Amino acid sequence: MVNEAGTGSDATIYDVARVAGVSPSTVSRAFSRPGRVSAQTAERIRQVAEELGYRSREVTRAAAKTTTKVLGLAVADITNPFNFRVIRGCQAAAAEAGFVVTLNDAQESEALEREMLRRSLPLLDGLIIASSRLSDTELRTLAKSLPVVILNRRVSGLHCIVPDMAHGVRKAAEHLLALGHRNITYLAGPEASWADGMRWRAVRESARELGFTEHRVGPFAPTLQGGRGAAEVIAARRLKAVVCFNDLMAIGLMQGLAERGVKVPEQVSVVGFDNIFASALVSPGLTTVAAPLTMLGDSAVRYITATLTGHTSPETGPVLVPVRLIVRQSTAPAA
Amino acid sequence: MVNEAGTGSDATIYDVARVAGVSPSTVSRAFSRPGRVSAQTAERIRQVAEELGYRSREVTRAAAKTTTKVLGLAVADITNPFNFRVIRGCQAAAAEAGFVVTLNDAQESEALEREMLRRSLPLLDGLIIASSRLSDTELRTLAKSLPVVILNRRVSGLHCIVPDMAHGVRKAAEHLLALGHRNITYLAGPEASWADGMRWRAVRESARELGFTEHRVGPFAPTLQGGRGAAEVIAARRLKAVVCFNDLMAIGLMQGLAERGVKVPEQVSVVGFDNIFASALVSPGLTTVAAPLTMLGDSAVRYITATLTGHTSPETGPVLVPVRLIVRQSTAPAA
Repeated sequence: MVNEAGTGSDATIYDVARVAGVSPSTVSRAFSRPGRVSAQTAERIRQVAEELGYRSREVTRAAAKTTTKVLGLAVADITNPFNFRVIRGCQAAAAEAGFVVTLNDAQESEALEREMLRRSLPLLDGLIIASSRLSDTELRTLAKSLPVVILNRRVSGLHCIVPDMAHGVRKAAEHLLALGHRNITYLAGPEASWADGMRWRAVRESARELGFTEHRVGPFAPTLQGGRGAAEVIAARRLKAVVCFNDLMAIGLMQGLAERGVKVPEQVSVVGFDNIFASALVSPGLTTVAAPLTMLGDSAVRYITATLTGHTSPETGPVLVPVRLIVRQSTAPAA
Repeated sequence: MVNEAGTGSDATIYDVARVAGVSPSTVSRAFSRPGRVSAQTAERIRQVAEELGYRSREVTRAAAKTTTKVLGLAVADITNPFNFRVIRGCQAAAAEAGFVVTLNDAQESEALEREMLRRSLPLLDGLIIASSRLSDTELRTLAKSLPVVILNRRVSGLHCIVPDMAHGVRKAAEHLLALGHRNITYLAGPEASWADGMRWRAVRESARELGFTEHRVGPFAPTLQGGRGAAEVIAARRLKAVVCFNDLMAIGLMQGLAERGVKVPEQVSVVGFDNIFASALVSPGLTTVAAPLTMLGDSAVRYITATLTGHTSPETGPVLVPVRLIVRQSTAPAA
């Protein structure tokens, strides 16, 4: 399978050295570190190599490096199952489009995200950034040097793809209202997250339009531990319907409530966001808002490919990906 | 943050074109597609550019491409949570060592694994392959052109890192024996998987050494569906202690048994392998054999770095990573 990087003909480095009247190591240097050999010598070696049909491993690799299309994929935290699904969707679409994919994991650190991007940028022909922690200005500067798609956040002037969270929040609220709940609590995730702000705003708008009372608890870390930590507040304040920033927090909250002897869904209804793998496996199964992340990856890769081939269209605001509510066993009629 | 790829001085492409007496597009072609311009013209343009201190975006990128260290990470199936953890471990270690990481997902297809490797190989300085489906010969050929580490499989002559599965199987068997079980069934995963063969062999060896009767059911797909499909056989044959190829199968088996009214752990004890994220969240919690996958990633990256800096050591067989048994609620005394 592997073309053992090296000779395009039978000519060896020794043949080139003999004909050019230099040592083999000079031939090697001429290809690997052009600056170390005089321009005149380098040119003679290049001509001899061309006549003999010799291609060094360096030349072969350098040529391949320039022609290989590389797509960068940057995520805020690879340990978040939501990002796993984003990676899976983008990776499959990118592979089909003939890209090699590089993966950056910012580990929820803005500084690390910046450093990893700086490092990989020279390799990239396009970049997809999910749940970025960088400023709008930094992202816009990035987009000046290569095609960029922003996932899960809105940055004006850039191509953004976001799940239709307002619709998802509204679906969740309608479901809880139909079960008789009149007070709905939003369990908030990280304040630096654009998605968190959007969800809380959607809760308030739904409250006004549908007629329920909204509460907000948090912020907590967007993790199992964060959700478990929130259980004390939810239990103490006797809140009965909670929409969580994401599934991890929702599952953690259910664990924390169980530890306190509070029953889900009999005493508290819990709704998550993301539909991660574990949501269908926990007991009770988690009611959650799901976005088709494969569609998101497809759409992002299609935009990069179109831009690279010169098919740009004027920005018309973010592309909204439809979401749906998956009802499982963690929601029940108000007690 | 972003060095807007371009000029190393104030000289522009227009300055170079004017001084060299050619059109700006010829200057651009001379850098981006050297073959399209005569050698003489290209050389003149190169000299003028050097005198004026002009560096094209192509030159800047090409230079950066050659100096950027790139580590390839290939996995058999990115949707398998075990591979998620491998990716996480390797990505963190590689980032710390200054590598850009490319990610290949073979989607359990040998042909796709080969195609993705072929595509990314020119970019790579080192390669880590987890759970490869390629032949030993192909992997050895690969290793001739760059440093390669094989995870989760043993290939003679190559640097391999594998969890100590024999020890894990023995720990699981001892645990089941202590609970009074005298018949232990191995629920087999894919036959093409090296790990599957190792686990079954370890079950037979443990049976001989510890004194129990071993059974084998399968092969089934290494997925939730595969495990659920096995439930019928396990229930029909009234098998009471099952060690599964991986956690996904174990969780699927528990679901399938529950659907048939068979109680875990009261009627059947179930043990998994991998300790994926969901194993702690399902009910009952899954007893499983865990490998420290972060250690595995660290060790792999350290080997690649050492090889690239010329510190090679003779192969002394696979590096065994220690495992441990995590006892949860899916195992109980024999009925």
